[in-house]
Formats: sequence, structure tokens, C-alpha cells
Amino acid sequence: MLKKNVETFLGCDSDWRDARVVLFGAPFDSTTSFRPGARFASAAMRKESYGLETYSPYQDKDLADCKIFDSGDLELSFGSPAAALSDVDRRAKHILKDGKIPFLIGGEHLVTLGAVRAASGAYPDLHIVHFDAHADLRGEYLGAKLSHACVMRRCHELLGDGRIFQFGIRSGDKSEFTWGKERVQTRLFDFEGLERTLDALAGKPVYFTVDLDVLDPSVFPGTGTPEPGGVSFEELRKAVTLVCSSANVVALDVNELSPHYDASGASTAVACKIVREMLLAIQKQEV
Amino acid sequence: MLKKNVETFLGCDSDWRDARVVLFGAPFDSTTSFRPGARFASAAMRKESYGLETYSPYQDKDLADCKIFDSGDLELSFGSPAAALSDVDRRAKHILKDGKIPFLIGGEHLVTLGAVRAASGAYPDLHIVHFDAHADLRGEYLGAKLSHACVMRRCHELLGDGRIFQFGIRSGDKSEFTWGKERVQTRLFDFEGLERTLDALAGKPVYFTVDLDVLDPSVFPGTGTPEPGGVSFEELRKAVTLVCSSANVVALDVNELSPHYDASGASTAVACKIVREMLLAIQKQEV
Amino acid sequence: MLKKNVETFLGCDSDWRDARVVLFGAPFDSTTSFRPGARFASAAMRKESYGLETYSPYQDKDLADCKIFDSGDLELSFGSPAAALSDVDRRAKHILKDGKIPFLIGGEHLVTLGAVRAASGAYPDLHIVHFDAHADLRGEYLGAKLSHACVMRRCHELLGDGRIFQFGIRSGDKSEFTWGKERVQTRLFDFEGLERTLDALAGKPVYFTVDLDVLDPSVFPGTGTPEPGGVSFEELRKAVTLVCSSANVVALDVNELSPHYDASGASTAVACKIVREMLLAIQKQEV
Amino acid sequence: MLKKNVETFLGCDSDWRDARVVLFGAPFDSTTSFRPGARFASAAMRKESYGLETYSPYQDKDLADCKIFDSGDLELSFGSPAAALSDVDRRAKHILKDGKIPFLIGGEHLVTLGAVRAASGAYPDLHIVHFDAHADLRGEYLGAKLSHACVMRRCHELLGDGRIFQFGIRSGDKSEFTWGKERVQTRLFDFEGLERTLDALAGKPVYFTVDLDVLDPSVFPGTGTPEPGGVSFEELRKAVTLVCSSANVVALDVNELSPHYDASGASTAVACKIVREMLLAIQKQEV
Amino acid sequence: MLKKNVETFLGCDSDWRDARVVLFGAPFDSTTSFRPGARFASAAMRKESYGLETYSPYQDKDLADCKIFDSGDLELSFGSPAAALSDVDRRAKHILKDGKIPFLIGGEHLVTLGAVRAASGAYPDLHIVHFDAHADLRGEYLGAKLSHACVMRRCHELLGDGRIFQFGIRSGDKSEFTWGKERVQTRLFDFEGLERTLDALAGKPVYFTVDLDVLDPSVFPGTGTPEPGGVSFEELRKAVTLVCSSANVVALDVNELSPHYDASGASTAVACKIVREMLLAIQKQEV
Amino acid sequence: MLKKNVETFLGCDSDWRDARVVLFGAPFDSTTSFRPGARFASAAMRKESYGLETYSPYQDKDLADCKIFDSGDLELSFGSPAAALSDVDRRAKHILKDGKIPFLIGGEHLVTLGAVRAASGAYPDLHIVHFDAHADLRGEYLGAKLSHACVMRRCHELLGDGRIFQFGIRSGDKSEFTWGKERVQTRLFDFEGLERTLDALAGKPVYFTVDLDVLDPSVFPGTGTPEPGGVSFEELRKAVTLVCSSANVVALDVNELSPHYDASGASTAVACKIVREMLLAIQKQEV
Repeated sequence: MLKKNVETFLGCDSDWRDARVVLFGAPFDSTTSFRPGARFASAAMRKESYGLETYSPYQDKDLADCKIFDSGDLELSFGSPAAALSDVDRRAKHILKDGKIPFLIGGEHLVTLGAVRAASGAYPDLHIVHFDAHADLRGEYLGAKLSHACVMRRCHELLGDGRIFQFGIRSGDKSEFTWGKERVQTRLFDFEGLERTLDALAGKPVYFTVDLDVLDPSVFPGTGTPEPGGVSFEELRKAVTLVCSSANVVALDVNELSPHYDASGASTAVACKIVREMLLAIQKQEV
Repeated sequence: MLKKNVETFLGCDSDWRDARVVLFGAPFDSTTSFRPGARFASAAMRKESYGLETYSPYQDKDLADCKIFDSGDLELSFGSPAAALSDVDRRAKHILKDGKIPFLIGGEHLVTLGAVRAASGAYPDLHIVHFDAHADLRGEYLGAKLSHACVMRRCHELLGDGRIFQFGIRSGDKSEFTWGKERVQTRLFDFEGLERTLDALAGKPVYFTVDLDVLDPSVFPGTGTPEPGGVSFEELRKAVTLVCSSANVVALDVNELSPHYDASGASTAVACKIVREMLLAIQKQEV
Repeated sequence: MLKKNVETFLGCDSDWRDARVVLFGAPFDSTTSFRPGARFASAAMRKESYGLETYSPYQDKDLADCKIFDSGDLELSFGSPAAALSDVDRRAKHILKDGKIPFLIGGEHLVTLGAVRAASGAYPDLHIVHFDAHADLRGEYLGAKLSHACVMRRCHELLGDGRIFQFGIRSGDKSEFTWGKERVQTRLFDFEGLERTLDALAGKPVYFTVDLDVLDPSVFPGTGTPEPGGVSFEELRKAVTLVCSSANVVALDVNELSPHYDASGASTAVACKIVREMLLAIQKQEV
Repeated sequence: MLKKNVETFLGCDSDWRDARVVLFGAPFDSTTSFRPGARFASAAMRKESYGLETYSPYQDKDLADCKIFDSGDLELSFGSPAAALSDVDRRAKHILKDGKIPFLIGGEHLVTLGAVRAASGAYPDLHIVHFDAHADLRGEYLGAKLSHACVMRRCHELLGDGRIFQFGIRSGDKSEFTWGKERVQTRLFDFEGLERTLDALAGKPVYFTVDLDVLDPSVFPGTGTPEPGGVSFEELRKAVTLVCSSANVVALDVNELSPHYDASGASTAVACKIVREMLLAIQKQEV
Repeated sequence: MLKKNVETFLGCDSDWRDARVVLFGAPFDSTTSFRPGARFASAAMRKESYGLETYSPYQDKDLADCKIFDSGDLELSFGSPAAALSDVDRRAKHILKDGKIPFLIGGEHLVTLGAVRAASGAYPDLHIVHFDAHADLRGEYLGAKLSHACVMRRCHELLGDGRIFQFGIRSGDKSEFTWGKERVQTRLFDFEGLERTLDALAGKPVYFTVDLDVLDPSVFPGTGTPEPGGVSFEELRKAVTLVCSSANVVALDVNELSPHYDASGASTAVACKIVREMLLAIQKQEV
Repeated sequence: MLKKNVETFLGCDSDWRDARVVLFGAPFDSTTSFRPGARFASAAMRKESYGLETYSPYQDKDLADCKIFDSGDLELSFGSPAAALSDVDRRAKHILKDGKIPFLIGGEHLVTLGAVRAASGAYPDLHIVHFDAHADLRGEYLGAKLSHACVMRRCHELLGDGRIFQFGIRSGDKSEFTWGKERVQTRLFDFEGLERTLDALAGKPVYFTVDLDVLDPSVFPGTGTPEPGGVSFEELRKAVTLVCSSANVVALDVNELSPHYDASGASTAVACKIVREMLLAIQKQEV
């Protein structure tokens, strides 16, 4: 009797029971204003992750030694951001309820809002560490409040002042920066001050959201809105490893890979490697 | 003093006042469930139309002799189908109010609903001639009623039984065909019976909607949901010419070109040529 | 508790026990001499099949009513054709042993040899119906006997004269045609005589192998060796339906989709639709 | 001692002395107004021709039995059409002087003018058979007389009325058709009347020029100016075979493949196969 | 009454009267010897610029506060470099005559010569600051004097010794460097010495020409002749900001984006962002 | 009488007799497990090398002054690694026998084994300097011993402990690193210690193998298995120049360019420039 065809991200084949981290994909990009396609990210990453090894020479750790479950992709309603966010919220809640860490693979950045809702329900003192090229602090965008360009503003409405810490930001409407000045900590262009921020967050529950367009488009062209002038792969690799290994990360996501703009596959490989390093680094909490 | 940079579809440079046909683009694809990208169609067609001649040897007519105004693209809210349809409706109403014919360039097929609303307001006895690979008769799709897969069902709610005439259909859920049997005239696979239908519609106001995926993907690969087994370019060219020259077309559209799947540009050229032939054929009404 | 991520070809989600047809993929292309890439076919088809409906208006049948199990892809050793063929053979034997029909998704055409070995073991009186642009009758190619260009020659060694029936052939070395004249029935360019052949094969066990490059490259550009001058989609659709519904097909395959040469996705859609029609047509045998 | 790396079109490896037909490439596209890239055609065809067989089942002939020399590509001055045409003219003269048939692989269609100059020098009674989507009869284009869009007008200036026979034409400025009416024989859309024309040309020296965009873009998307509505591969294959085997072709060319618009390689395969069939058909003159 | 469809580069929608800087495009690439396509740059940049914000966090300035007019693209004669250069010259003169700064978007680098002719007419003491991977100092190239590979040599003929200052150069024929040694200041590989040069040019009228291939191909693959080993985005961003804000720039250009080699769109984004930063930096002169 | 069409890598047109370095291509990728396509590298590099200059401003040397012969590509049997390696071995032996230096252009990395066999026959004291992202030290891979993933393990079997010096390695199975610890010198991530290694190798015969995926995918996306986190172009350029100019290199290769993943051509340009610099640097030995 042959087995069913189970597909997971590289090395994420634990049983649900044992798993401490649970992956899920949110293939959604309906509010993307410039170039859609992030909906294809989670499937592409699952498939292309097999170009990587499970072992990381950076951390001398192996995914084969970790307990991770891949619960596949949600089936989301295109054209209905509210419904899609509810579905993301529900899945994340399900995972959190069992004491596990939800790891969301977007999709456009708006999907983060669904997971932040779930995480802030479970951890009222939630803080957000946010890597991105774009501030995403607009009040509304083209008449819509549920838009990728407003996602951090919506998160701020949930969490309040002083809870969001942005790094790598290099693009935004002037008014976003003005609005954010007193409410959000925004580090322009790079990760300077990250260690200090993590020290200040010691012990607090952290939602960690990585918009991969924080990377320079030379490293990561495969995204909806390429913003020249970003960080290098090494800078991002070190920064995500630091956050995942030293903060109390209770939920996390990686988003905005758009495989259609990744003719060479290099961006998908970058996304997969960043996820691998995050999965390996977060394991310290299992001890 | 230099002039502003005005861009129009090939040969559509009349003044608003003189124009009998008015083009407008609806760059929207948020409910597209399979592969987005139709939002880029109108801009691509405007640009690539200059690979064509204004003269048609098929009809021995020239766009240079026609009165057409290109009013550019709407700026639509991604992620909000209801808002987008309102904007399409408003633009179409504006054009109809001045006694002109709106020619909508989609976008995903859902945008048709906005223009049909406007046209059925102006012409209560409106009928629809619909070329497509897909029946688009679902009650809802992935929980949404405003979806490209439901657009003809929504139109049916506006117009009632016996008003929609479909040709070229070759894909649908079984229940769509069952539902449609008594309510909609559906010709599978080709255009047989089109002349008879047009005879029956003589004098009645017709909305003509062309989903370009009615074409075989060999001719028109550049679309979101390629359906092998479609009609040839010659079959479509003759059929659209027939409808535009012999029916009382009061509004019309062409949709579902997705330039990102058109590496060679051939699909965009097909879309442009079909639009040129439609524009030339509909001119007989100006006499 | 969340479920594992099971991925199947559209509508092929039966239990193993109930299934009469069992899909499996053979991602192998090591002997491809011109352009490799057929290894990516089965994964691409599984993913892109969801752009189709389960219902076929051609046959008025629905995959939802069929019993098909998708056993996923083999993990084959690149660079070792002999080992790869053993693995294909073993999987096909496993399926045949349970009285089910193996449906192999290639890969390059060589993989057919593995399944033919298994099927000729189970059915010593096996005949082959072969659709292809290329005769594949070389004795050896670039020094290798296990090559895609020799696959029918190898099959002939297993089955003997008068057992192989080729259609659509339009390319080959002159010596292949000379050699085949007395041993193989070769119909050039199209499917003429197919009904007569099927009549002659009535009741006999048939292995049905479809090299999709039998299609014209306008319809199916996404293949390793495009051969202009092939059959249309409608011709192939009708021919595969005929074979699957009227012959005693005991094993079958579809091969030589190469997704890297299918920028628009239209070729993958063609491959999926042909497989859907084959799966639906072969179901008559379940009654 | 190892040999130098000689590259030829498939099967064209005769000695200069023995050869009756001599290939040469003219990688030039400077006057292309819409999309350049035809400069890459001859190199791509030389390389991709090895995806074909030397044997043609259509004609039951083999390139291995023919005497053809491939003299490689000219190095032409981009930006200087006059200089480029001189170089083409010189190469063609060199070949004609030795009693051989020059077979030019373009490049944009303007290069034909260089070879027609040489051929009309050698054969003052030269006639032209011209397959194309575009009439190419403009007096000038964007201020230039040496433009791809004017090439047949320039040829007419050399040869005079009644010497040019066009087939497959489906695009042009209205004035081109008006001008051509009394001077050139223009068959719109297809090859009807070709046999009659060839009968009338019996014995006369013929220059045969094939702009591959005469093909429908479904068959041949890889060209600078795709014109939907063209002929099929089979129609072109039969027509070129007819011209080459029954007319007194003294020089010929194939042009306007633009490999950059041929992501799948299918257009390059079409170009190569058409050239193979022309090379095989013209061989009858060697007897 | 609907408005005409005016398209501009992001935020460049001033009236002609108010504008201090005037954009225009020169879609020309006929002399490009390696890979054409720069003709598509200005249209692509106009369209893709809307992926950017008008606000720059680098300079804390906003295009919304600037006075820039976009006069669209010239219609240039392909195949006639002399005619094309005259048209560029005429447009630049028109802009200079009104006391405005022409900002040319190429096109291949040869178009710079047209604008330099106009600028050196208006400012006889003109100097050139030139960023490029290639020296462009050939006397002639493939027999042509009006070639992209000779553009700085032609400019030298207009301006004489000691007027041209090159940075970032990393490719050239040996003889170019020898010739240039006494006549042109050439900094290899990077921007070292740029401040010193700008000090020396204080007050003098400067033509600033940026061949974007000065960037490393990892940052800017979308160009005709990629030259590995170039500068980073940050290095170029700082250098162009320095030149535009501290020199007396009287005319400027950016060229050699070739969108066809920019599958991801990242190169177009780089070109747009560099232009935005240049437009913002040059505004200091308005005070 | 026209000449045959000889094609060589840029500037490599010496006579066999004079040549000190002899290029040859090994278009083979049958054991590539992730994404094939390296077979197309040598032809692409030969063609695209003409986008470069023969002169290097880095070394102030010119290929025009060097003696290099390009012997073209081997015709290798796909699907038979053993046969392919024999052919590579034989060609390298032929070159070595005449006292020349073989320069192999792969192909997948396995082809190196063929050339190492030849070189270790001629120079029993052979050492290997190896630049790569992957350790390639597996005992076997997917059941095969002749696999790209095992190539250095096979070389170790020929040469023994302490003869292989790896740099830039950043990917491997954990067991590879364990196995290699005592047997191979492996420098992770970069080229630190290269000078020391070269000092230690002074006078000893060195085989130098460069897997281009040692570069970061931002610089070199066009490869089968992109590994983010690699070295920059400048780091590799300096390192290869150092090895070629200071070690006693008796044979060398460059491999793993996969042009199909190089839409922009930038990776091919990188490969060509690295080869140019290696060819120029190794010339010092001719003195």
C-alpha cells in the first residue's frame, strides 16, 4: 500500500504532537497595489527548500534535530481581506492554544495582521519587531484600511504606542514618518540598535515579522515592490538569528517573496535559507 | 512650450466632444483566484498597440477616420471589489450620459459587472452577448459573491432569465451548467448559432463582453487561467466583427489579458488587434 | 490538531484501497540530449492542475466521481538510468499487483521502459499504443542504449515484432524508419487509422504512452525538443479519449512536459487537461 | 593536434568547392522600429538546429546527402544601414560569382535589399517571390528610406513594375496598398494563387524572400512585430517547398526571427525546420 | 467631460511655465553593438516609477514640492543616428532657451551627444562629469563614428582637452586608455577623487551623464553590456547626490537601462530611484 | 573562397602549436540533482564573451597578446557519467601530453573528476585548490558514486589526505564536514588563508577548480543550486588572479554556470570575465 503524497518545508516533518513550531502558509495578495504574486510564495518555498541542506554551518545545527510541523496552506478568499485575516487569525489561534509557536509564511504583508491579532489575544503584552523596507504606517491606502501599506498602523491600533520596533525602513510617505515619530521606533536603512532593543524587550513576548524586501533587490529581486538600497544577506541573516535566539519570540512570519519576479530562483533560495536559520535559532527555547 | 505627454490606444485621439466611443481601463484583478496580473492589461495594450497599423485590410477601414477618445485608466482600490465596481459603474455612467459608448478594457472579468450596472440603468432592456472559456455562473466562489467566477451570475441577478447569451464556453463546475440550463443560453466550445442569436436580438440594446480566454492558449497564452481547446484567432475576429457591426451594441468590454504570462508579446498583439477590429466594426453606427 | 499537507493531482484523492487508477511521477531527465527539464513535470502538473475544473464538458464526467490515488513522485538517481528504471519498474509492479492501473507522469520518455517492463511482466501479451513526434527507435544514441531516443527500440526487444503502434511521428533518423518498417506500425504526422488499430487490439492488454511533443509546438511549446508540424489539441484530446475508452488499457503514461520552456503555463495546462480526459475516459472500465 | 571549433547550421558542412548553396548570416536590426533582436537569429538558428534531424520525412531527403557550405555571419556596422547593405551585397556577389546560390539568414528584412542588389546584378531579369505579414512598400519610414518597412519599395525601384509577387500580406498603411495596386501582385492573408504565379515565372530567375512573420504568432511568436491572423506551419512548409522545388531560385533568404521573444525555443525550431525544408527542396536543381 | 490620459514620471506634473527641470526621453538604440533594448527605458521608467514614493528619506525632500515637467519621448528615426541626434539636440535647445535644465532619459549612450551639443552651445565653457563602466573613447567602432562606443570621443571633439571627468570606468580597448591619458581624467573602478573634481569645477557649467552600467550587474543587470565589478547602489546614490547638489549642473542624463534584461524589475526600480534622487538634489539650485 | 565559421572564446584564436593553454568545453549535467542546465555553459560563454574587451584594466594585460587555443566542446553521452568522464580524461590527457595546460569549461562539477584523473596521471604529486559553495564530499548521493555532490570525495580517493584545499564552502551535509575534518582543508565562507595555502603549495603542481556558485547569488544567480551568503565578484576576482599568477597551475576549470537561470546575462558575463582574468594571470608562466 503506497503512502499519500505529503509535502513539507525542508526538514519540517515532525508529528503535530511533538512540534514546538508550526508552519502555515497564507497565499494571499489581493491588496498588493503594485505587483501581485506573493500568493505563490509558500508553495514555491516548500518546493525549492530541497535545494538547501538541513544542516547550517553558521549555527552548527540541523533541522533534522528539530521538532517542526508544516500544516500546509490556508485556502483564502481572494478579494476579501477581512475574510482572509479571519482565517489566518483562526489558524494561528489554533496553534497558540496548544502552546506552540505559529510561523506564518506570507503572502503580502497584510496577513501579518491576522497572526498579530491571535498573538495579542494570547499575549496581551505583545511587542513587535519589524524588518521591512516600507514603514507600512498609512492610515488608509486607496480608500482601504485593510491594505498591505497600512498593516503596521493596524497593529498599532491593537497594541498602542511604544510596542512596535522597525528596522531597515527606507521608503514611505512623508506623513507616515511624521505620524510614527512619537508612536513607533523606526530605524532607517539598517539594523543599528537592534541589540539594544532586544535587551529592552528581554522577557517580553515578541511577534517577529520579516518583510523580505528589507533586503537589497540585488539579493532579493523577487518581490512586489523592489526598493534599492537595502541590507545584505549577511546583515539579515545575522539579525534574524539574533532576534530568534535572544528574544522571547511567541509567533513570527516571513513574507513578500513573489516568485514570478524570481526568474533565477535566487530569491526563493534566500527566503528558504532565512527561514531555515530562523527555525534553527528559535530552537534554543526548546531546552 | 512643449506639450504634455498624452498616451492613448492606437488612433484613439479624438476630442471628447466628437467621440462616439470612449475607452477606459480598469486595472483590477483582486478576486482572480488562479494567477493575478490582468491589472496590467490596459497599460500594456495602450503601449503595444503601436505595433499595429490603424488600417484594417479585413474591413478596409482606418482608425484614423474614427472618433474615439481614450480616457485612461481608473485608479481602483485593490482588495475592495465593491469599491472598484462602483468606480467602474460611475465612469461608464458618465460616458453613457453623454450618449457615447463605453468601451472598458479589463482587468479581470469581474469589472464587467460595474459597466453592466451602468448600462442596464441606461438601457433597462439590456441583453448580454458573452464570449468566454468559462461559464462564470457560480453563486459564490471561496465564500465571495463578488468574484470573477460569479460575474455572469451577478449579471443575471440584474437582468433576469433569457438575457444572457454565452459562446465558446468549455469550462465550469457541473452545477453551473445545471443552474444555467433554463436561464442562460450557453453554446459550448464555439460560435455556432451566433448569427441566429444576433437576429433574435435585432434592435435590442446589447452589452458585449469578450473574455479573451475564449481563444485557444496557443493563440492567447497570456491570460490568468489558460483553457486548452479554444477558438482560433480567425474565428474570434469574425465573431466580434459580426457582433459589433450587426448588433445594437451600447457598451462593451475586452478583458483577461495578463501581460506577465505573455513573454513574447503575441497575446497583447492579439488583444490589440481584436480591439481595433471591434472599434472599426462598431463605427457603422455612426453613419 | 492540524492535518499534514497532502498534495495530489486535481481530484485524485481516493484512498489507496478504493482506487482503480494510481498516479505516480518519475522526475527524471538525465538522458535528455537536447534540453533537460522534464524532471519538473509531475510537480508542476500537480500544482497547476488546480487551474482546471474536475468536470469535463467533453465527456460530461467529473473526477469527483472517480477513484484515483496519487502516490507522489519517486526519488530517482540522476545520472543512473538503470537504477531509475528499476525504481519505476518496482513502483508499477506494486500497483499492478493490487489489480490497479499505474498512470506514470514523466519525466523524459525513457521512464516508459520501466513501466513497460512491469506491465509486460503482468501481461505477457502486452501491446503498445504510442503517440509521439519522434520514432524513438534508435539502436543506441551517443553510445548509450538506455536513452530517450531508443526507448521504443528497447520496448521492441521486450515485446517483439507487431506489438508497437506509433501515431503522429514526424521526426527520426532515416535508419529508424528503415529498421521499423517491418517491425513496428508507424503512422506519420497524424492519427489516421487509429480506430482500425484499436479494433484490431480489441481485448488485448494495451500500454498507452503519450509523448506530449506529438502536439504542435504552438499548442505545446513547453517540451525539450519542439518539433513543428504536430497535431492540434482537439486531435490529441479526441485520440486519447478514444484509446482510453475503447482499448483495454492496463497501464499508461504521459511524458515530456518541460515546465521551464513553458513561460505562460499554457503547456502545463494542456498536459493537465489531457491527463484529466484520460483519467475520465479510462473510468468506463470500472463499471 | 586538436581541431578548431567550426560551427555550422545542421548538416551544412560541405567544402566550399563542392557546395551549391552557401549560407550566410546578417545579424542586423538597426532600423527595426518596434522591437529589435533579429540580429541574434542566425547564431541561434545555427545552435538550435541540432535539435532537428537531418532527414525530412516530408520530402524523404537528407541534408547529409546535400552540398551546402555555411560561411558564418557578417560583422555589420550597427547604426549604418548603408554600410551593412554594402557588406551583404558583397558577400552575396562573391557567392553568385562562383555559380552558387546565396542563402541569407537575417536579421531584419532590410538586409534582403543587399542580396537583391547582388542577385539583380547577376540576373537582370530577376523576379521576387515574397512571403510576409507586412507589405513593406512604404516610400519612407520615420524619415528613413533604408528601413525594414520600405524594403520591397526599394526592391521595386531596382526591378520595376510586375516583378514582385507578395503572399500572406495582412498589414500595411492604407497608402501602401493603394500604391502597390498597379505595381506589385499582392495576395492578402494566404498563399492562394501561388502555383499560378510559379507557372508564370517558369524559367525566370527568382529571388525568394521569406519574412517568417507571415506565420501566425501562435506558431511563431518570436518575431519583432507579431501580426495575429497568419498562416499555419503546414501552409508555410508546403508553400516554401513548392517555390524551392519548382521555381528557378537563384538566391533566397529567411528573416525576422527574434530569439529574445522566443522563450520556449519553438520559434527558432520553426525557423530551422523551414530552412531545412528549403535547403532540401532546392537541391533538385543540382541534378 | 473626461480628461486626456497624461502620463509622467512620478511626481513630475508641473506646468511647463513653472518647471525648472524638464524631462524628455530618447528611445534610441540603433548603434548598440551587443544587445539592443535601451529604447524601451524611458517608457518603462515612467510606468514603474509609481512603485516608488515621492518622498526621499535620504534627503528628506519630496518630489511633490519640486517643479518638474515631463515632456514625453521623442519619436526618433531608427537606423539614422545623425537624424536622431539632431532631434535630441533640438529638444534640449528648446528647453535650455527657456532657462530650464534638460534631463534626458536614454536610450543608448550615444544620445548624450545630442544634448551635449545643445548644452555646449548654450554654455561654451561646458565640462562633463561622466559615470560609466566603459570609457567610450573609441575613434570609431565597426566603421561608424556615431556609435555608443565613441560618444565621449565625440564630446571631446566638441569641448577639447581637460573638460571630461570620468569615474567608475572598468572596461575599454587598451588604445582608449592610452589616447585618453593626456586628454581626459579617468578614474578607474570607483568614485575616488569626485569631491576634489567637483571643487575644481566650482561655478563652471557641468553636463552630468550617468551610464547606469557603472553599477555592478548584481544591482543593475538590466543593461545592454553588463560589466561585473561595478559600484554599489549606495556608492552611486551618494555620488549622484553629491554632483547634483554641489555642481552647477546645467543639463544631465541617465541612460542604458534595457528593460528586456530586467525580468524582476529591480533594475528599472534602481534607475527610477537614482533619477528621483538626482531630481531632488538638483532642486537646491532653485532657491 | 569563403572561410569556415570558426567560433572561439574571446581572443583565444592561437594556433594549436603556439598555444600554452587549451580550452575545451564539457557540456554535461546528467547527475545534477536540483536544476540541470550547466550543459549550456560553454556555448553560452563562447558567444557572450564578445560583450567583453580582450584588455583587462585590472592586470593591464590583453588576451590579444596571449597564446590560447579553443578546441571546442566534447560531445558527451548524457545519462552515462562514466563514459563522459572518460571523454574528459582523454581530451585533458591529449592536451597535457603536448605540455600544454588544459582549461576545462563545465558543465556540472563532476566533469572535474575526468580532468583531475588526467592531471594526476601526468603530475602524481598533484594538489587541488577548490573554490565552491558546496563541500562535494559525500560518499555517494541518491545511490550514485559518480555525482556532482561527491566529486571532491572521488578526487580524494585519487590523491589522498592533505591534498585538497577548499575555500568559500558554506553548504553540506553534516557528515561531510565531519568526514573532511582530518582529510581536507576546508575554509568556510571566504578566502581567508589562501595566501598561506599558496605559500605552502609553492612549486607543487596544482589543479585549480572553480565552482562559480562560490559567488553570492546576487552576483551569480545563473547556477543550478544558488546558495545565498557567498563571496563578492571582487573577492573572487582577486582570489583567482592570485592562484593563477602565484601557484604552479597545471590544469584548471570553471564550472556550474547554468545559462537558463541567467535571464539578464549577467551571470554569463561574470563567468566570462573570471575566465578572462584567469587566462591573463596564468600567462606569467609562459615567460
